[in-house]
Amino acid sequence: MTEKVIVREVGLRDGLQIHPTFMPTDSKLRWIAAEAAAGVPEIEVTSYVPPKLIPQFADAAEVTAGALDVPNLMVSALIPNMKGAQRGLELGVKKLNFVMSVSRTHNLKNVRREREESIADFEQIVRLIREQPKNSQPIITGGLSTALGCSYEGKINVADVVHCAQALVKAGADELVVADTVGYADPKQVREVFQAVLSAVGSVPVAAHFHDTRGTGLANVSAALDCGIRAFDASLAGLGGCPFAPGATGNIVMEDLCFMLDSMGFDTGVDLQKLVQVRQIIEQTLPDIPMQGALAKAGLPKNYVSVGQAQFAA
Amino acid sequence: MTEKVIVREVGLRDGLQIHPTFMPTDSKLRWIAAEAAAGVPEIEVTSYVPPKLIPQFADAAEVTAGALDVPNLMVSALIPNMKGAQRGLELGVKKLNFVMSVSRTHNLKNVRREREESIADFEQIVRLIREQPKNSQPIITGGLSTALGCSYEGKINVADVVHCAQALVKAGADELVVADTVGYADPKQVREVFQAVLSAVGSVPVAAHFHDTRGTGLANVSAALDCGIRAFDASLAGLGGCPFAPGATGNIVMEDLCFMLDSMGFDTGVDLQKLVQVRQIIEQTLPDIPMQGALAKAGLPKNYVSVGQAQFAA
Repeated sequence: MTEKVIVREVGLRDGLQIHPTFMPTDSKLRWIAAEAAAGVPEIEVTSYVPPKLIPQFADAAEVTAGALDVPNLMVSALIPNMKGAQRGLELGVKKLNFVMSVSRTHNLKNVRREREESIADFEQIVRLIREQPKNSQPIITGGLSTALGCSYEGKINVADVVHCAQALVKAGADELVVADTVGYADPKQVREVFQAVLSAVGSVPVAAHFHDTRGTGLANVSAALDCGIRAFDASLAGLGGCPFAPGATGNIVMEDLCFMLDSMGFDTGVDLQKLVQVRQIIEQTLPDIPMQGALAKAGLPKNYVSVGQAQFAA
Repeated sequence: MTEKVIVREVGLRDGLQIHPTFMPTDSKLRWIAAEAAAGVPEIEVTSYVPPKLIPQFADAAEVTAGALDVPNLMVSALIPNMKGAQRGLELGVKKLNFVMSVSRTHNLKNVRREREESIADFEQIVRLIREQPKNSQPIITGGLSTALGCSYEGKINVADVVHCAQALVKAGADELVVADTVGYADPKQVREVFQAVLSAVGSVPVAAHFHDTRGTGLANVSAALDCGIRAFDASLAGLGGCPFAPGATGNIVMEDLCFMLDSMGFDTGVDLQKLVQVRQIIEQTLPDIPMQGALAKAGLPKNYVSVGQAQFAA
């Protein structure tokens, strides 16, 4: 039996949010459709924030609607607060990714709230969702930014991560995402933090969100796999970067993540060659955006048999 | 007690050997001196091959002599055969890195010998070394190229790796290096291969040599650390590439390796900031060589305390 791992594209949100050029709505929708066709099961397609704050997401409604037309795709979007949640409910998105920071300073800068206020917001959001008819309730995810380090505060205490994780679960989170927002983590720290969170939250699924800012992204994935994590965020071509480190790499590269998982025998459902081809949509539309990715340059190993092909042959 | 990990610079050999521009001898020696001063304890400074084959190593004698003047540095060089070993003995290098390929096809293409012939060569080389006066015997390393995959043959059987490892140890290798020459490996495979080799060769030290061709380099380091490996090859700025994959990345990046190890609490003896500065020598001398590296772009995490600083404070 091949074990499944869920890969989740976050490039349309985390990859584009700091990029100054607007990606045309049509290109975003072609990207979403092509990556879903390559087998990626879940895509965070936008963020429900005021367009004044992030003009890149001015087309959130059109992108959400278009993505919802793609068959068999889990369409998610980021929400920073109640307003975002209300917007998501109106638009009928399937999953809402609420985000708060474990770092107090980062939370204040990012969403202008104390962490306790963010947790209170989350409780209200869950209440609002549970008031909806059963079949129109989106999945609600509790996201913990800066859980493995913060550009303002440096190290983050594991106890603080566990505290926030428990609070979001108590408030009713369907799943958690633990994020190394600024790419500080190493595999040893990943094991410490994820083991602590997993034993604190019981059966609630926990996903991992890593950045490759200091080169440790896939090493951290491997460490999280060892802990039992089976869902990972990534962005095509590693779009993302970091506003604090000009030229630094962003999210882990989706193509490289899928190659590593597939090579280790995990079933991602992704066709690696089709996935690499999706890069062309970004290249053509945003020629000024820095693109990362080793697999796209090197190609697959000689005589490589992917998990999907092996299953087909067997 | 902080556990030590040995990092070994191989960029002057593996990084430069496919680069068409000759790096001036003076620049090579400045690179060696600066990286040793940053704390890197071992550097493979050249390869004893005919300059007709690889003109980059035409200055092997001068580079070896210059490197031997650097205090506290383990100076090693690659040898493909007996002639290389004889040259190394004449030049007084401290360590000889013999290399053969586990892949039959790669060994035939690379050193024009069957694997059995390479093993017989190695036996003779060890005999020659043991005939030298005790205090002038270099350390002899048995290197296993393509141990985790081959651009000609694809997958490599673990049993073949173990067979070659045992043969080199039986012939008298002081240590082994198991190499993913073309960057095919994933962490699961690394665990399989290194555990098999370690249990087959007993107390002989085993080092790992990874390429980051498909993005899995540091993930493979982390998996090898889990197996107990405590010595790693890398090259500054990830110099290297692969003749079969234009534009593909080469050896794992020394700076990123040292950051990950240091962050995990291993004592490498390396000053990360000094190490990053050594890149300038390459930038100034070979402006046309592709340079990789995440730490150099992103910088250290906020309030980062390295293992060395923590020891000093304690």
